[in-house]
Amino acid sequence: MRSPGLNSFFSGIPDFESGKDTPRAFLERCLAAIAEFEPEVCAFVHLEIENAKAAADRSTERWRQGRTLSQVDGMPIGIKDIMETSDMPTQMGSPLYTGWRSGRDGASVTALREAGAIVLGKTTTTEFATRHPFHTTRNPWDLRRTPGGSSSGSAAAVACGMVPAALGTQGLSSIVRPASYCDCVGFKPSLGAINRGGSLDTVAHSVHGALGASLGDVWIVLREIADRAGGDPGFAGLRGPSRLPLARKPTRLAVLETEGWRQAAPEAKSAFDRTVERIGAAGVAILRAAGCGPVAKVESAISNAMAMVTAINAWDMRWPLNSYRNRDPGKMSEELLAQLAIAETMTLEDYRARLLERAQMRAVYAKLADECDAVLTLAATGPAPQGLGSTGNGVFGVPGSLLGVPAVSLPLLEAEQLPLGLQVMDFAERDGSLFATAAWLTEQLRDNRLRHA
Amino acid sequence: MRSPGLNSFFSGIPDFESGKDTPRAFLERCLAAIAEFEPEVCAFVHLEIENAKAAADRSTERWRQGRTLSQVDGMPIGIKDIMETSDMPTQMGSPLYTGWRSGRDGASVTALREAGAIVLGKTTTTEFATRHPFHTTRNPWDLRRTPGGSSSGSAAAVACGMVPAALGTQGLSSIVRPASYCDCVGFKPSLGAINRGGSLDTVAHSVHGALGASLGDVWIVLREIADRAGGDPGFAGLRGPSRLPLARKPTRLAVLETEGWRQAAPEAKSAFDRTVERIGAAGVAILRAAGCGPVAKVESAISNAMAMVTAINAWDMRWPLNSYRNRDPGKMSEELLAQLAIAETMTLEDYRARLLERAQMRAVYAKLADECDAVLTLAATGPAPQGLGSTGNGVFGVPGSLLGVPAVSLPLLEAEQLPLGLQVMDFAERDGSLFATAAWLTEQLRDNRLRHA
Repeated sequence: MRSPGLNSFFSGIPDFESGKDTPRAFLERCLAAIAEFEPEVCAFVHLEIENAKAAADRSTERWRQGRTLSQVDGMPIGIKDIMETSDMPTQMGSPLYTGWRSGRDGASVTALREAGAIVLGKTTTTEFATRHPFHTTRNPWDLRRTPGGSSSGSAAAVACGMVPAALGTQGLSSIVRPASYCDCVGFKPSLGAINRGGSLDTVAHSVHGALGASLGDVWIVLREIADRAGGDPGFAGLRGPSRLPLARKPTRLAVLETEGWRQAAPEAKSAFDRTVERIGAAGVAILRAAGCGPVAKVESAISNAMAMVTAINAWDMRWPLNSYRNRDPGKMSEELLAQLAIAETMTLEDYRARLLERAQMRAVYAKLADECDAVLTLAATGPAPQGLGSTGNGVFGVPGSLLGVPAVSLPLLEAEQLPLGLQVMDFAERDGSLFATAAWLTEQLRDNRLRHA
Repeated sequence: MRSPGLNSFFSGIPDFESGKDTPRAFLERCLAAIAEFEPEVCAFVHLEIENAKAAADRSTERWRQGRTLSQVDGMPIGIKDIMETSDMPTQMGSPLYTGWRSGRDGASVTALREAGAIVLGKTTTTEFATRHPFHTTRNPWDLRRTPGGSSSGSAAAVACGMVPAALGTQGLSSIVRPASYCDCVGFKPSLGAINRGGSLDTVAHSVHGALGASLGDVWIVLREIADRAGGDPGFAGLRGPSRLPLARKPTRLAVLETEGWRQAAPEAKSAFDRTVERIGAAGVAILRAAGCGPVAKVESAISNAMAMVTAINAWDMRWPLNSYRNRDPGKMSEELLAQLAIAETMTLEDYRARLLERAQMRAVYAKLADECDAVLTLAATGPAPQGLGSTGNGVFGVPGSLLGVPAVSLPLLEAEQLPLGLQVMDFAERDGSLFATAAWLTEQLRDNRLRHA
């Protein structure tokens, strides 16, 4: 197996305070990884290397003077190309936006610059963060395979050590799936936790998150963003401490198979089952549908989640897709035009009915919080599939998205000698609690990650 | 008093079916009003007259063939210049966006075109739909006075009969105040009722609505938009029938003075009081804080609403304003830079505290629904003030905005021989019910509108 350079953790690692390491030196290591891997991996659509070097030098000076702006000061970050950047084009993975510049930074990007982070470049996304990849980003673990999507480039860049973290968005499975395929941590926060301003992101339950080399990397990035940009307007913003929550052993964890289980590869299922067994053996009570009514109720409530998310997302993207089609349908994929055509058969009444179903689903899931600390599922149906024409099956990301709860994919499983994510979901606005559980699982299952030794 | 041409109602009036009137002839009457009033009133920043004529001709042909697209087919409409239009610039009242074209239509504009309406031009807005007017739009009733804001041009254009209806947005008082000053109907729907996609509109409780010559005009415009574009993602969209709800006499109406009462002009207060007396004399029970506990509780709960809305709006606009300031502060008003500076002293915790207070306020107000059918207040502190440097005092729009409930300003009062609006508010998602009450009030108080005879 190819061995990308995932070992460039930022959080807690760089010895900037002593001056032994500097933001500029850290950046140079990222640039070396880019020089090595980018020609084949194609994670970025745009890089601003000279600006990044200048920003790293300014950060180096702040560290020298003890006047840093935040815990991500000097951290190089990739920005999914669905978010606007003042100094780079925002092309949204669509030929309709080739070379387009909005002239402003999106909310997260503005916050990152305020916090002293280094906005290194724009990472590839599928077309308008939906299904079709116009890009040719490859999975660093096997170049014949997809990195997943829609946050394709963010996952691939992190996996190669090009950046310690990169921003992503998820309205279906667009963070947890590429994280699973590329062996990163991928965090989709609670609904509304991160301000989506300045991002083409019209799906109701979509949320901004991050992919990173470690739990700490993604936590500090989103924490610093939320403190400066808040959540979506009207939302309370990401909840949790300013530093990575300490590992906390859960008492009870529920296992959800979800509708993805029937679609999952046998090796993925056995890798998951073995890991759940290990967690149980470490003294955590494992609840399953077979022996626990509330778990069974959730399985039943979310059994049709993919059809529901597909319909809701289609309606929510009716605009702007209809405006784009009116402009130039020739620059849109067949898949997206087909999605729009389906959306145009829907009525407002249909949409309302889906929202009601979703609210009922959320209520059933919320009750599960009385039974367990968090929920375990697979993050993907298996390792990244071969070919670059599709970004794989997103079924395992759907429940977290529809429910609006925080979910993280942890790079702790393996199938067919390729990466596979263990997904942990928590309950609404319990993002900090999710990380405490995830940190414990990461410590407990560290030896699952032998490939990084 | 100058007498603008408000008498060009669209809803229910045009005799397009018989062919006696046609969309093209209707448009020509609008263009005649534009030719007459626009040089002094300056309601539009951009007009697309040739496109409008071609669209009117196509609509005329559809009416002739009995193949119309909707009840607004052929209706000329003004678009507040905060919403994107594919064939016109979107300048948002800001020198930062002079000549900017987004290349797409916002959600409402796309829906209007689908419905066969005629997108005639872009109406002026204050800077990013906040306070400062860079425009010089004048009040048609007295050219030395402001038309109000931020939907300045939409109100002025409707008042002159340049269009039967125009779109507006309200995050504080930006629909009901200009409607009050310009003698239009101004409707701010329930939170989330109209899809804000493709509009610079980051304030949590902001909502899209319409100003029009009659209740019917604004109802059919928003109804047809909601049926095609839905509400904000995740919201149920405008509720109510496809035609203007029939007039329905309310049993009980509550009067709210709100914090605006102390700031209102004596003549405005007496005009309001006389009208409330007439409504009472017609057999409607009038509830006031003095004799009704739930009304008193609401008065108390919303007594500090202006400070709260100011803080919430400031935080919600922190981005994108910080990105704009980073680009070119010289192209922003002093007022807006000052607002941003205040926002930057706020923390996420401050914002959360405001959201909690707002939720409590909404809960108190919702209980009032047990006591009455709707609520009456003034729509503005008095007639439009003199001068074009400010758009007036928005205090009376604040409760409806913060509470997220539907509100309509009816052109039924007069003070200092100038227009003044009677505001009717209902409860969340009861937009249809609000219109039934408003229709009854309009019939009942018709002779208040002698100036239009």
